[in-house]
Amino acid sequence: MTKVYTHMTMSLDGYIADPDDGIGELFGWYGAGEVTVPTADENMRFQVDPNSAGLLRDILARTGALVCGRRLFDLTNGWGDNHPVGAPVVVVTHHVPEDAEKWPRTTFAGDVAEGVARAREIADGKDVVISSADIAGQALDLGLVDEVHVSLVPVLLGEGIPYFARLAGAPHRFDDPEIIQGTRATHLRFPVRRVSRPS
Amino acid sequence: MTKVYTHMTMSLDGYIADPDDGIGELFGWYGAGEVTVPTADENMRFQVDPNSAGLLRDILARTGALVCGRRLFDLTNGWGDNHPVGAPVVVVTHHVPEDAEKWPRTTFAGDVAEGVARAREIADGKDVVISSADIAGQALDLGLVDEVHVSLVPVLLGEGIPYFARLAGAPHRFDDPEIIQGTRATHLRFPVRRVSRPS
Repeated sequence: MTKVYTHMTMSLDGYIADPDDGIGELFGWYGAGEVTVPTADENMRFQVDPNSAGLLRDILARTGALVCGRRLFDLTNGWGDNHPVGAPVVVVTHHVPEDAEKWPRTTFAGDVAEGVARAREIADGKDVVISSADIAGQALDLGLVDEVHVSLVPVLLGEGIPYFARLAGAPHRFDDPEIIQGTRATHLRFPVRRVSRPS
Repeated sequence: MTKVYTHMTMSLDGYIADPDDGIGELFGWYGAGEVTVPTADENMRFQVDPNSAGLLRDILARTGALVCGRRLFDLTNGWGDNHPVGAPVVVVTHHVPEDAEKWPRTTFAGDVAEGVARAREIADGKDVVISSADIAGQALDLGLVDEVHVSLVPVLLGEGIPYFARLAGAPHRFDDPEIIQGTRATHLRFPVRRVSRPS
């Protein structure tokens, strides 16, 4: 059964990047161990501790589609149409690129609800991962998220780009997390509490 | 040997209270279990899960002094000069209250460095806990903190008063945390990484 979850690497003060999109202080855990985890991109592999390796293998095996925003798509050049997780990408954007045919495995959706719906279809029973912070927040507000995952890094950045911002539907309440302690990251998985909302 | 640490209950998005100082969404873990933990204030007891009970007993046994800011002191009326943790309080403030004699066990210090130094003397080998967010941040920047403790609550508030704000010395890097999983709070204890700074 498809599970929709958000996943970001975050500092203890809630940032997923420094103000200039830098991730040097945060992404150290992807190279902080002895276990090699290959990805779908043959030029990219992780070198992590055993606990984080289990987590990453699980993500690689179970992800059926990714949802991201236009900013991350542009920053990564659409991962060359081959995201390391090995699954098709759905980009939420109001403006489809004119050269969209350069990314034949990538789908463009006009809003978050459509993006998550398309990703569910593509995932075909596997999981949907939301990997842009702004999309994650909007999907949470829309009640489309089953779990919130955080790889919490033991650093305070002081300023930067927040994981959770401009939440219209807050407070959002979760159950207690599953915890996987890695090296340079504590992986937390929070199930979203379902509440009946006035419609 | 005295350990100086900060401790706050914090939402997943980094807030220690809502914008109106409300803590209803955050302090549920103090009443979320079956184990009764008495405090130094006979009118106040915690009712927590076994793991959180162990943590609280440890705090009650080992705290030699608390450091807080004037705002928290005013909000609580100085805890009636009898903080539940059972230790004397040091208040960092530029303006000593005119009726300071109403709090004979409370010490007033003019700045954070003096406050922590006075608390260390009072603690006499026991621990010093910094329990105001603004003081915690300043003490971190001054290099006076050995550990940062967070009781992380599974909720996104969306807005509020941050634990970590206006950090002049960021990034602050920590070692991987010790973790105690409680009910409605994940207790994380991060040792501060000592670095040689240019003086």
